[in-house]
Amino acid sequence: MNLNLYGYGPEHDRQWIMVDLGITFGDDTTPGIDIITPDPEFIASQGDRLLGLVLTHGHEDHIGAVPYLWPELDCPIYATPFTAALVTRKLEEAGILDAPLHIVPLGGHLSLGPFDIEFVSLTHSIPEPNALAIRTPTGTVLHSGDWKIDDEPLIGQTTDEKRLAELGDEGILAIICDSTNALTDGLSGSEGSVRQNLVDLVQHMTGRVVITAFASNVARVATAAFVAQRTDRHLVLVGRSMHRIVAAARETGYLDDFPAVVDEREAGYLPPNKVLYLCTGSQGEPRAALARIAGGSHPNVVLEEGDSVIFSSRVIPGNEKSIFALQNDLVAQGIEIHTEKENDIHVSGHPCRDELTQMYQWVRPRISVPVHGEMRHLQAHGALAKDLQVPDVFVASNGTMIKLAPDEPEIIDHVPSGRLHLDGDILLPADDEILKERKRIGYSGFISVVLVVGKKGTLAARPVIETIGVPFEADEPLEHELEEVIDLLFQRDRYLKFHQGHSLEELVRRAVRKRARELTGKKPITVVRLVEMAG
Amino acid sequence: MNLNLYGYGPEHDRQWIMVDLGITFGDDTTPGIDIITPDPEFIASQGDRLLGLVLTHGHEDHIGAVPYLWPELDCPIYATPFTAALVTRKLEEAGILDAPLHIVPLGGHLSLGPFDIEFVSLTHSIPEPNALAIRTPTGTVLHSGDWKIDDEPLIGQTTDEKRLAELGDEGILAIICDSTNALTDGLSGSEGSVRQNLVDLVQHMTGRVVITAFASNVARVATAAFVAQRTDRHLVLVGRSMHRIVAAARETGYLDDFPAVVDEREAGYLPPNKVLYLCTGSQGEPRAALARIAGGSHPNVVLEEGDSVIFSSRVIPGNEKSIFALQNDLVAQGIEIHTEKENDIHVSGHPCRDELTQMYQWVRPRISVPVHGEMRHLQAHGALAKDLQVPDVFVASNGTMIKLAPDEPEIIDHVPSGRLHLDGDILLPADDEILKERKRIGYSGFISVVLVVGKKGTLAARPVIETIGVPFEADEPLEHELEEVIDLLFQRDRYLKFHQGHSLEELVRRAVRKRARELTGKKPITVVRLVEMAG
Repeated sequence: MNLNLYGYGPEHDRQWIMVDLGITFGDDTTPGIDIITPDPEFIASQGDRLLGLVLTHGHEDHIGAVPYLWPELDCPIYATPFTAALVTRKLEEAGILDAPLHIVPLGGHLSLGPFDIEFVSLTHSIPEPNALAIRTPTGTVLHSGDWKIDDEPLIGQTTDEKRLAELGDEGILAIICDSTNALTDGLSGSEGSVRQNLVDLVQHMTGRVVITAFASNVARVATAAFVAQRTDRHLVLVGRSMHRIVAAARETGYLDDFPAVVDEREAGYLPPNKVLYLCTGSQGEPRAALARIAGGSHPNVVLEEGDSVIFSSRVIPGNEKSIFALQNDLVAQGIEIHTEKENDIHVSGHPCRDELTQMYQWVRPRISVPVHGEMRHLQAHGALAKDLQVPDVFVASNGTMIKLAPDEPEIIDHVPSGRLHLDGDILLPADDEILKERKRIGYSGFISVVLVVGKKGTLAARPVIETIGVPFEADEPLEHELEEVIDLLFQRDRYLKFHQGHSLEELVRRAVRKRARELTGKKPITVVRLVEMAG
Repeated sequence: MNLNLYGYGPEHDRQWIMVDLGITFGDDTTPGIDIITPDPEFIASQGDRLLGLVLTHGHEDHIGAVPYLWPELDCPIYATPFTAALVTRKLEEAGILDAPLHIVPLGGHLSLGPFDIEFVSLTHSIPEPNALAIRTPTGTVLHSGDWKIDDEPLIGQTTDEKRLAELGDEGILAIICDSTNALTDGLSGSEGSVRQNLVDLVQHMTGRVVITAFASNVARVATAAFVAQRTDRHLVLVGRSMHRIVAAARETGYLDDFPAVVDEREAGYLPPNKVLYLCTGSQGEPRAALARIAGGSHPNVVLEEGDSVIFSSRVIPGNEKSIFALQNDLVAQGIEIHTEKENDIHVSGHPCRDELTQMYQWVRPRISVPVHGEMRHLQAHGALAKDLQVPDVFVASNGTMIKLAPDEPEIIDHVPSGRLHLDGDILLPADDEILKERKRIGYSGFISVVLVVGKKGTLAARPVIETIGVPFEADEPLEHELEEVIDLLFQRDRYLKFHQGHSLEELVRRAVRKRARELTGKKPITVVRLVEMAG
């Protein structure tokens, strides 16, 4: 997820612009957390010295946090038409109707205080990826956004190489640049080649065909339509985000020649060799269309032996198990699967090493700041920039404040950065105790004991014992064994309440936890509470 | 994890042998579960008609469940010397001293009832991998175990090609064969090439060098010693399993010329360019040596800028996030990392497609049953076998019973199969409610309410409310808000206990859960218990 800040001016009067405001997604290590945003603490503290939020493109890791965090920032938002269409939908769904969202034309300019911002068209895996040439009185910074070089992107413009080279001629102080594929040699490849390879693959298929791809890759969506036409099949869109993206694309002038699609409820009546489903869920997301189709729980789409599923997508690291489980499900039903491992049916949207090299040759920056990647990618990108003789390279962790100009560039500060978890409706710091508590219980289980005691410290009722997630296999429930321990404690010392050293709660807690551990081998979180009765 | 059964005879009097009995490991989807075993329900029900457990080799996914499940099987165990040395340690650690473990020499024979079993030496990523030629009166089955073709395995014998071809000449009814790399073209490569490439890589390094590899790959351990000698460094073993494997290997006649190693406590005194650490933890396991070194918490090994870590290992699917996090940690400290992505410093222990093809050419079986892989691997293996004109191919899921002979082979039954989770000290079925309960609470949080009520159904004390893992951000704790809801309920209806339709517990449960959901957006598991007082 991305959030970059550019400041200008002396510290007490520094003005800021924010570039992008994305989310990332939770996983099995963050149970109950689907959405993770950056922590905006630092920039929120700058009040109205934040002049605006400028969005480079419409991927979730660049715009997804806008509906969650904009209320804290309360600044104008700037985006090109397609990105703006996606953000508008998000804001509406969040009930935010008063955010000033300004549309900037492709190749347009924007002036925010000391910042003059030029949008430069690049290519990526979504329409309208923009680099930002951010001019200030002390120099020009090129923020690359996400990009690649694609001579045949199918949708939208090709990389504006001429403008990049002109910017290099003008002089670029620093490039802040995508590092995702800095460990990958060569070139990322073209959407054009994917189109031809998919036609070649599908034309020999005789059953139903499903292509699964990222919905936001509108070029790939157009390719699916092209493949359907070439192979005499009807295109069927499956999955909410697929419909959403197609609507946003058409609304902003893309997909003008998109064919009429068949509704998924009708498609079942067509002969298998006449349908091509384009489907969400390439990452094995359990609630997405493809997982539901594979599991037999999709209301309208049924596959059977002899049908084919084409994964026109990559395996995002961390999703291996869910993707492979999905593929195993399909294979077990006699459905053929095709992936990018054996077929050239996917290209990355990010620059490989030869593309990065090309960018540095166009732009010739004095400073390189690798961003957008894990530390191992940033480091590889930084090493490449050094090899390309960029004078200053900063491989920096989140929160690092770098002075680019005037004078020698240097790290001048580290400001608060971090992550927020959307837990239910509440944004919590990623290191909050609440999630740790849930994880501890998920690991060890939980025992709650409530003791009703009289004034003299004797039990006035049977203890209320609740065990959650503690394994036990015996004729008697575990609670009985634990109650016995408590009874024993009280028998041994009727006035346990007045025991030296430890509170009654702590004495019982220790005894119960020890017994549970002996019986199960687990160490459940154990909480004991007292209710003191008058009698 | 592997557990294969071979039976002979009519159903009411069928005799069985078991081949291998492995474990797999839990992950973030199974919180609190480290070890997962097969469910032995079916074979345990066969009593003493199970004639023995035959182990092909010493990997955890083939022997790991022996200490957990042998007590239920109570049969003799057979293994070659190195495997037996590993199993002996496991049984001892589990306190099992009475298991009859018989050592079979390499290339040896074993007779169990109607089964005559010949051990055939193959190559793999551990010493002493054996295929089993299982002869019965109705035909010979070749169980491949895990294998590859390696002309230069460095430790142990090369694949016994001659014997495999002879078995083919004799006639093989069925091969039950490793499918791990059935999706990968070409050959798996040789340990010999890894050795040379590691020497080439390390000889230019000037700081400390860490090689991380699977401990059980004794050839790779020997290679680390070789690389140390060639690059004038002292070998240091780090990690408990590294020491264990070296001990087991030496005990059984491997690593005879292994050099003296330096103790990790002494190695810190050597100049950086004189040490080579061989370390566990290539998968990013948080408690293994490498993660502790990277995190700065290892008692004896410290790395610094300019040192290098070489991952002579593959990324096991599912471990990406932990491995990459570990690599990012290292890179952030200025430590160089080298992986198989850029260097040929690892080879798989399983047969790629060209090796599978070679095996089928040697053995020429009438039937192929792909095993050892996910369904997508089994299916690819099965398709390859069909292309190689094997007359009958069974791509079958766990629990499938296949009649191989006499007459036409066919699926004749599906017997209980599945997984057991070692939860604390207790083995539970994988679909047991206990883990689901923990996962639900890990996801949603938990609210426990205990109400002390008098005879008339009025509250006799303040409710005891415990919330665990429920997010809330306000001045007052969430418990106060929930207590208010309960108070309101009781105010509205003093005799709530006698309310129609729902029990008091259920009324309170619903009200509390609804309020928690309104306040937090989560749906915590909520449990309400009553303590009824005499007064």
